[in-house]
Amino acid sequence: MSGLLALDWGTTSLRGAMIDGEGRVVEERAFATGILAVPPGGFPTVFEDLFGDWAALMPLCLISGMAGSKQGWALAPYCACPAGFADVAGNLRWIEAGQASLRIAIVPGLSCEHDGVPDVMRGEEVQVFGALALLDISDATMVLPGTHSKWVRARDGSIEDFRSFMTGEFYALLRQHSILSRTLPAEDDELDEAAFSQGVTHALRSDSLLQTAFSVRTLSLFDRMPAQAAPSYLSGLVIGEELRAQPLDAGADVVVMGSAALTRRYELALAQRGIRVRAVGSQASWQGLWALSQTLD
Amino acid sequence: MSGLLALDWGTTSLRGAMIDGEGRVVEERAFATGILAVPPGGFPTVFEDLFGDWAALMPLCLISGMAGSKQGWALAPYCACPAGFADVAGNLRWIEAGQASLRIAIVPGLSCEHDGVPDVMRGEEVQVFGALALLDISDATMVLPGTHSKWVRARDGSIEDFRSFMTGEFYALLRQHSILSRTLPAEDDELDEAAFSQGVTHALRSDSLLQTAFSVRTLSLFDRMPAQAAPSYLSGLVIGEELRAQPLDAGADVVVMGSAALTRRYELALAQRGIRVRAVGSQASWQGLWALSQTLD
Repeated sequence: MSGLLALDWGTTSLRGAMIDGEGRVVEERAFATGILAVPPGGFPTVFEDLFGDWAALMPLCLISGMAGSKQGWALAPYCACPAGFADVAGNLRWIEAGQASLRIAIVPGLSCEHDGVPDVMRGEEVQVFGALALLDISDATMVLPGTHSKWVRARDGSIEDFRSFMTGEFYALLRQHSILSRTLPAEDDELDEAAFSQGVTHALRSDSLLQTAFSVRTLSLFDRMPAQAAPSYLSGLVIGEELRAQPLDAGADVVVMGSAALTRRYELALAQRGIRVRAVGSQASWQGLWALSQTLD
Repeated sequence: MSGLLALDWGTTSLRGAMIDGEGRVVEERAFATGILAVPPGGFPTVFEDLFGDWAALMPLCLISGMAGSKQGWALAPYCACPAGFADVAGNLRWIEAGQASLRIAIVPGLSCEHDGVPDVMRGEEVQVFGALALLDISDATMVLPGTHSKWVRARDGSIEDFRSFMTGEFYALLRQHSILSRTLPAEDDELDEAAFSQGVTHALRSDSLLQTAFSVRTLSLFDRMPAQAAPSYLSGLVIGEELRAQPLDAGADVVVMGSAALTRRYELALAQRGIRVRAVGSQASWQGLWALSQTLD
């Protein structure tokens, strides 16, 4: 029996992959059963229900993401940055559960600190190590866009530093709960690239989203933007704000790890700062967990 | 019969004052009947219900605020900046309503534009002119804090330029609807000045609220901030972000027009940039409307 049951168990989603002894992904599953949907003490049962069939076939399960947080399955304390692949591999949190033939471990997250203020990630570190392996590089500036985007600086194969931005969450708050939502259409159409880029441009030359967000209202008030284009424009304002805050040199590369749709937005936005994108998909998680499994006997 | 019925009719509130022939405020009233609470066509009735008794005693009523917007009583188009007191006085929108003995006019708002993006205010222009009169000055940098804070530059008695910041609204969104709300107490205690100032400091040395807001979560996660202090800290982050975006010279004055509680927060925050505060209360609206009434025969 060889291979790996790889899980990425986040706040609102749970993805799993069955990986064979050669590191190939045989099958994938995804559920909306994030850790918030699991009752206290309920992790072994949910695991058995959703992955028991695979667990019976596998010698090892590695789990990354919020499953290692205080509200998760078992606490896997953060490793402090700079942290390399070996630091993460050496701090797996082994847990007792499931079939006796299966060993299960949770991957620790990372922490860092800027001016006395801590920052944290859980799950993204595995994607970063996976992406470095997939791209065969050891130095990179990377972004993992999402509810809480992570900007990561990797040097010599280690994660030297990272910063979180509540970009996706701010978009959702403004889209759904702010006064701006009154003039926005109920449903998002597909991306209006011109409106998105207009938002990025405005954000890059401004000082704060507190001010630029108000332009969604005034452009509508003066009939200068059709309602259908406004969600794309707002998305450009928020992602542009995230980019404005990054120390990036024109001509550099940024590795973007996200869905195809989000990657397209970052590609458009980063182009305005003269930055090229290297895209890596969801396989980075599986690559990272597989590489961790290879450090164990 | 002399005197003025002065109304400040905003989005969510309606304030009124009876002002005698000498410009003294005789009585004030406040209601939660902002324009959003008035059904289409319902303005004359609401006015008669809430202020009919005063209207019977007065020759003139001037109304500032959102009552002059598309969703208000009658549209009073914006005056473009730079705009002086005479521009506003010359563009009152007279309306027919109420007792035949009463003349009613709505005060226009102001608009300006930066890099092709419009900005607007309604009601604050009257407060600005009132404050300039009360303080007997013609040049000032002013802030009217609130849901949508306005930063105003007055020169030679005119409003040269202004900018809106969705500061109060962002605070409410983060406080009530974001992931941060999970670790915040249900009720705001009174201001924790140390935590507030810590938030301001962090915002002033950072680049974006997208990043600093995440520290509310991480400081809690690492037990570095008691939950009771976190709302004050978040308020400091948001107000500090607004201040970070202002071109202010240390040693300058800023006129703050707001409630005593908000003025105290701006005083604390502006002190970190070496700025002195001159405070003006709600009387600025009445002073501004009274001054407008004196331009009419």
